[in-house]
Amino acid sequence: MATPTSKLLYAASANNPDQLYFGRVSVPDPFIAFSIAGKKYAIVNALEYARVKRDSAFDVVLPLETYAEKAMERFGKFGRLSPAETIAVIAAEFGQKSFLVPEDFPASLYARLSILHGIKLEPVNGPIFPEREIKTPAEAAKIKEGNRCAAAGIAAAEKVLKESKISNGKLTWQRKPLTSERLRTAIEIACLEAGSLSIDTIAAGGNQACDPHHGGSGVLRANQLIVVDVFPRVQATGYHGDMTRTFLKGRANDFQKKLVATVREAQLAALKLVKAGVNGQVVHQAVNDTFSKHGYKTERTEKGATGFFHGTGHGLGLAVHEAPRVSTVDYVLKAGSVVTIEPGLYYPGHGGCRIEDVVQVTDAKPKMLSSFHYNWEIK
Amino acid sequence: MATPTSKLLYAASANNPDQLYFGRVSVPDPFIAFSIAGKKYAIVNALEYARVKRDSAFDVVLPLETYAEKAMERFGKFGRLSPAETIAVIAAEFGQKSFLVPEDFPASLYARLSILHGIKLEPVNGPIFPEREIKTPAEAAKIKEGNRCAAAGIAAAEKVLKESKISNGKLTWQRKPLTSERLRTAIEIACLEAGSLSIDTIAAGGNQACDPHHGGSGVLRANQLIVVDVFPRVQATGYHGDMTRTFLKGRANDFQKKLVATVREAQLAALKLVKAGVNGQVVHQAVNDTFSKHGYKTERTEKGATGFFHGTGHGLGLAVHEAPRVSTVDYVLKAGSVVTIEPGLYYPGHGGCRIEDVVQVTDAKPKMLSSFHYNWEIK
Repeated sequence: MATPTSKLLYAASANNPDQLYFGRVSVPDPFIAFSIAGKKYAIVNALEYARVKRDSAFDVVLPLETYAEKAMERFGKFGRLSPAETIAVIAAEFGQKSFLVPEDFPASLYARLSILHGIKLEPVNGPIFPEREIKTPAEAAKIKEGNRCAAAGIAAAEKVLKESKISNGKLTWQRKPLTSERLRTAIEIACLEAGSLSIDTIAAGGNQACDPHHGGSGVLRANQLIVVDVFPRVQATGYHGDMTRTFLKGRANDFQKKLVATVREAQLAALKLVKAGVNGQVVHQAVNDTFSKHGYKTERTEKGATGFFHGTGHGLGLAVHEAPRVSTVDYVLKAGSVVTIEPGLYYPGHGGCRIEDVVQVTDAKPKMLSSFHYNWEIK
Repeated sequence: MATPTSKLLYAASANNPDQLYFGRVSVPDPFIAFSIAGKKYAIVNALEYARVKRDSAFDVVLPLETYAEKAMERFGKFGRLSPAETIAVIAAEFGQKSFLVPEDFPASLYARLSILHGIKLEPVNGPIFPEREIKTPAEAAKIKEGNRCAAAGIAAAEKVLKESKISNGKLTWQRKPLTSERLRTAIEIACLEAGSLSIDTIAAGGNQACDPHHGGSGVLRANQLIVVDVFPRVQATGYHGDMTRTFLKGRANDFQKKLVATVREAQLAALKLVKAGVNGQVVHQAVNDTFSKHGYKTERTEKGATGFFHGTGHGLGLAVHEAPRVSTVDYVLKAGSVVTIEPGLYYPGHGGCRIEDVVQVTDAKPKMLSSFHYNWEIK
C-alpha cells in the first residue's frame, strides 16, 4: 500500500509547533486538523470557531459540535467517545481511509482509529512537515526578532551585574542579595517588554553553571562564571530566539580567562564550517578539536559529566529544539536551515562557560541572526 | 490478557504535566520514564543525569547513553533508530512485556514497539495518573500560590486602568495609547515579579472580549468591558493559578451593569452547588438557569456563538485544563479536586464578561483558592 499523502494532526497549536506551522493560529486545547488533496481543514469548537476562521491558514474550518453529534449518533451506544470517533465520522464523510500522522500523534487515537475504525494511520519516520527545517526569509526575520528579544534579556542581565556590588564575595543589587532568581526575573521582564516570553531562562553561576540545564538558584557570587541562556518565544509569531553569554562580576583568574577564550575560539571554528552540504558532525568535531588542542578533556562519570558533553547546536524556529542537529549525529546541513552554535566547557570547582549564537545556513558564509557583544568581565 | 500495571512515558516534563507529576523534575527534552513493581525509573542523557538524580522523585536514574549503545548493537543494522529501540532493550533487561501508556504517548513509538518489538502497549482510557485529580493539601497550597500570582497580574491591570486617561474615547497610559499588548505586558511583569510565568494572558476589550480565547490587540477604549484572564504557572512548582476579572474604564451603561451583575450571580449560584458527589452538569445547569432567568440567550451561528457557550469550569493543577470538567459532560465531582468556576456572557456589539475563581471541592462548602475583589467600574 502506498504511503498516504493526507496528513492528520491532533494537538494544541499553543504548544505543538507542527500544529502551529500547519494552521498558523494559536489554540490552547488539542483540535483535529487534516489535509486532503492539498486543502487544509480544522475542526474546532464554538469557543475557537470565529477566531480560527478569521485568523488561521486553514482553507476550511468546520464546527466540532456538528461532527461530535454525528459521532454520538453512530458510536454513542458503544461507550465513552474520544476524538477518534469524530475523526472516524469525518474520514467517512471525506471517503478517506488512510492518513500520515506525526511521530507525536496520540497513541490512544492511533490505537482506536486503527483497531476499532479500520483507518490506516502511518506515523512518519521524521518530521511531518520536513519543509519546516528550511526557513523562508520571513521566518528568518522572525527568528532574528526572537534574538533581538534574547539580546534584550542578556543586556538586562549585564546591566544588573554592572549595577551590583560585591560584599563578602557575594553580589548585592538594589541593596538586596542578587540571586539567580532575581537576575532571571530581570531578564524575563526585559524579554516581555521586547515582546517575547522567556521560559526556563538560565542564570546560573559557579557549579550550577556546570549543569547546562540548571536554571540557577540562590545568591550569586563574585569572581564566578555566570551562564545566561535566554530562548524567548516571540508572542506575536511563536518563533524563538536562543542566545547564551557567560559573564563574571569581579576579577577573572587565569583558568577562567583561558576557558572563556577557548569556548569562543571553538565557536568561531564551528561557525567557519557551517555551510549547506556540510555534515553537522564535521562542525561538531571542530569544537572537539579546539578543546582537545587546548588540553580540555571530556569525561563521563557516575556523578555526571565534565568538559564538553552536549551537542554543538540545534535547529531553531517554532520549537526551541528542532531539525537539524549539529552534534555526533550524521546530519547534512541544508541551505535555509537555522541553527544555534553553542559550544561550552564545564568543570565543577572551576566553573562553566557557554557562548551561543544563531545563524542561517547558506551556500556560502552563514548569516548571523543574533547579535550581542562578547565582553564578559564586569569590574 | 490482564491490564498491565507498569506504566511507560516518553515526554518532556517541561511541557507534559504527567511526566512532571511522575518525576517532579523539569526536563526540556522528551525522555523515557517507567514504573515497574512500584519503583519509578528515568533514562536520561549526560546533560540531565546529575540534576535528575539529585532533584527528582525517580527511584532509579539510568544513563541513556548505555542503553542507546546497546540498542545500536542490537538494532543498528536495521536502519535509523528511535527511542523505541532503547525502550525495547530496557524492557528486555527488566523482563517486561507490557506497559500502560498515557493517551498522548507518541504513536510512532507505540507502532514501532507493538509491531516491530512485540511489546504490548495499552493506552489508558482516561488519565494515566488518576490520582492527579485529587489535590493534597500541599498541592492546593501551590495552586493558591498560583492564584496569588494571578491576582498580582489582575491588580496590575486594575492599576494601569486606574492610572490611564480617556482621550477621544480611547485610553492612554503614561502618555501613550493603552493597547491590549501594553496592558498584557504590565500583567505579565507583575506575574513574573510574583514568581510565575503567565502565558497567553488575555486582556481583550469590546468585541474581542466576546471571543473568549482572543488575547486582545490594539488600543483599548473607554466605556467598554475589558476581560482580563490570567493563568500563570508558578516557576518553582509548575502549578497554575487561573483567575478572570472584567473591568471597564469610564462609565458603564445599563446593559453592561446588568450583564456583569448576572455573570457574578451565576458564579455564586454555581459555587453554592460545588460539592463532592455533585455532578458537574448540575453546577453548569445552575449557570444556564441564571442566564435564562434574566433573559440571556445562547445562540450558535455560522459567524460564531453568542451568550454562554463554554464550560462553567475545569480542573486546575500542573495543567491549566485537566480533570474534572464542570460542563455539559457527565462528571461527578470528587473531594480534593480543584476547579475553576468561570461563567461568562458574550454579545458582540455590547461586550463580553467573564468572572473566574478557583475552589477546592470538599464534602461541605468549597474552599476558595483565589481571592480578588469584584469591583469593576473604574472611573
